Amino acid sequence: MLNEPVGTVAGAGALLAILRDGQARTRAELVQLTGLARSTVSQRLDALLTHQWIVPTEDAISSGGRPAVAFAFNSSARVVLSADLGATHARVAVTDLATTVLAERTSDLAIDKGPEPTLQWLLDTFLELLDETGHTVEQVCGVGVGLPGPVEHASGRPINPPIMPGWDGFPVPEWLGERLGAAVLVDNDVNIMALGEHWAARPEADQLVFVKIGTGIGCGIISDRRLHRGAQGAAGDIGHVRVSSAADVVCRCGNTGCLEAVAGGASVAAKLAAAGVPASNSRDVVNLVRQGNTQAVQLIRQAGREVGDVLASIVNFFNPAVIVIGGDIAEAGEHVLAGVREVIYSRSLPLATQHLSIRTSELGDRAGVVGAAVMVIEHVLAPGTVDRAVLR
Amino acid sequence: MLNEPVGTVAGAGALLAILRDGQARTRAELVQLTGLARSTVSQRLDALLTHQWIVPTEDAISSGGRPAVAFAFNSSARVVLSADLGATHARVAVTDLATTVLAERTSDLAIDKGPEPTLQWLLDTFLELLDETGHTVEQVCGVGVGLPGPVEHASGRPINPPIMPGWDGFPVPEWLGERLGAAVLVDNDVNIMALGEHWAARPEADQLVFVKIGTGIGCGIISDRRLHRGAQGAAGDIGHVRVSSAADVVCRCGNTGCLEAVAGGASVAAKLAAAGVPASNSRDVVNLVRQGNTQAVQLIRQAGREVGDVLASIVNFFNPAVIVIGGDIAEAGEHVLAGVREVIYSRSLPLATQHLSIRTSELGDRAGVVGAAVMVIEHVLAPGTVDRAVLR
Repeated sequence: MLNEPVGTVAGAGALLAILRDGQARTRAELVQLTGLARSTVSQRLDALLTHQWIVPTEDAISSGGRPAVAFAFNSSARVVLSADLGATHARVAVTDLATTVLAERTSDLAIDKGPEPTLQWLLDTFLELLDETGHTVEQVCGVGVGLPGPVEHASGRPINPPIMPGWDGFPVPEWLGERLGAAVLVDNDVNIMALGEHWAARPEADQLVFVKIGTGIGCGIISDRRLHRGAQGAAGDIGHVRVSSAADVVCRCGNTGCLEAVAGGASVAAKLAAAGVPASNSRDVVNLVRQGNTQAVQLIRQAGREVGDVLASIVNFFNPAVIVIGGDIAEAGEHVLAGVREVIYSRSLPLATQHLSIRTSELGDRAGVVGAAVMVIEHVLAPGTVDRAVLR
Repeated sequence: MLNEPVGTVAGAGALLAILRDGQARTRAELVQLTGLARSTVSQRLDALLTHQWIVPTEDAISSGGRPAVAFAFNSSARVVLSADLGATHARVAVTDLATTVLAERTSDLAIDKGPEPTLQWLLDTFLELLDETGHTVEQVCGVGVGLPGPVEHASGRPINPPIMPGWDGFPVPEWLGERLGAAVLVDNDVNIMALGEHWAARPEADQLVFVKIGTGIGCGIISDRRLHRGAQGAAGDIGHVRVSSAADVVCRCGNTGCLEAVAGGASVAAKLAAAGVPASNSRDVVNLVRQGNTQAVQLIRQAGREVGDVLASIVNFFNPAVIVIGGDIAEAGEHVLAGVREVIYSRSLPLATQHLSIRTSELGDRAGVVGAAVMVIEHVLAPGTVDRAVLR
């Protein structure tokens, strides 16, 4: 970083980084903002115009004389293919460079069928959606995919994903990249949900923790406005933190007393079924809560308390500005939230909770696909990537 | 950040940032590394030479002809005053710009006597140490102070510190700054210990958690190689996380079941005293362990397990590369460490512990003063600060 020549940083990518806020700027303004020579700015603008990353527009505030030409970011320059693949269902979308969803589709999907049939279906769906929006594969600048398991960040490959038989080490980026001719980025589903929610709903928060409560439980962490992946990319796996109320409950991970084993959607559904209330998954639980089933409401509130107990420690340790509760179970709304808040406010330090915002996801089901698009856009529009693309 | 002119970033500070690694470089090398014009580099080097931040040296690898002049960072250009003030004892030091301790003093100190007597003593000690090293106040580039309580980062003032009566909101930076004529930076003691240990012992670790087990328990967090302070500067306060084994133990914070109330040095000493073994603080506990007192060894190992239980959750959530155990109790060495490791390896996810290093502090008692010096040096040598200092 330190030894990177300043010239690269101050290339076309630096101009685009400035223009990405949507505001149009004149050549003179860009010269002033970057400190670059006028001739360099002109050369870089030409490259960006050629690639249609920016469009010329007339400067509205110009007074008298010939109006100065201003340049604005062109969010329609390319499209992004985006997918949030869960254990049992999937959401697939085409977005523009401002993460606006142009077309999308949801579908049941059994991820445990293995990588090839899943990815073939995903490829077909991508192509259908592209067709729907009137775009071609050539206009795709990148592909973002979220998977329900640990993903090695550098390679984009799943690593020992517990609920994805056959996927361990599968080269997802290569498989899709060869067929679509675009960069493919893959990450854990909760990480992309955190990215999406941060981008769309709370971009001003320096620290945000997105907790997904579905069949399992996990969280995505935004630290200093960037995704915190941890030393092995394993950060956020709070589903297997031990909770005191469940010392003897065996978890699918083989340990006992895990949060997920007492508060995950599968666990709550099993408790309801054992009590004679028909429920087989987290969606059933949410439907029962919506119908006002007392047992379901009690269990979901208690699940919220269990999650809150783990989050109380995290609030003391990490001191986030925002906690977002998402995933299927979050759709049970205020009952889960009340349980979470109850414990956090009783257990965390007052200094850390004074301005803490605890809320359900604003993007809801869409957090994943928006986040996958954000991941791609941040990569594609990074100054270094743009420089390499337009200057080659 | 985005709108900061490139010219500022590429000033004298950028040259110093490159030279700080200790390696001497020629003018030509610096032109190549920065991408700046030769005339600009020469002008910036002159400014740095005038302020003695760098010294000229002959390029050793020059072959034939007139040897090229190279420039090296001058770590003796200034000195730093550094202090680690605890609840009952203090360590004060003078260091150079490479954090080498030139003189230091340790002393008993009752922080609860209030800010004025404490800071007056600190000022006197700083001046005595400066005299010992043959330096004057004019050579001091900054002052770093660690305090045993929460500190508001922006103002450097303690905020509601529980064991520091009279210190709430006291303007420590202004009080010392007026008398020493230098920038004063103040932070929580565990934060500076984390900074010191990271700088001196594990600079390559992206994520490091420094746990201080003394009378109380707290931790300092390095994320992306920088101190993570959290939204309210409250991050790292793990002493009041609830642990299951202590549901009915009342903590000094007013809550029950806090980690500190069962595993802190004061708690362990009280348990020993109640069992008829004379001990009144964490140093007594460590001495008993060193003497092989079985009860003390058992209690300290159990304290390690309690701390390990909280750290196991943190490992799952944060996925650090390194956990460092410091503070008085850490001097009981392998017994504490064994307890911590036992629980982390049994409770945390294998992926997150596979390459996790868990160790005691390498700097030991000195982590705080080294860290306070690092805090000052990072501030003083930051490109923007250097630019303002040499170009004014």
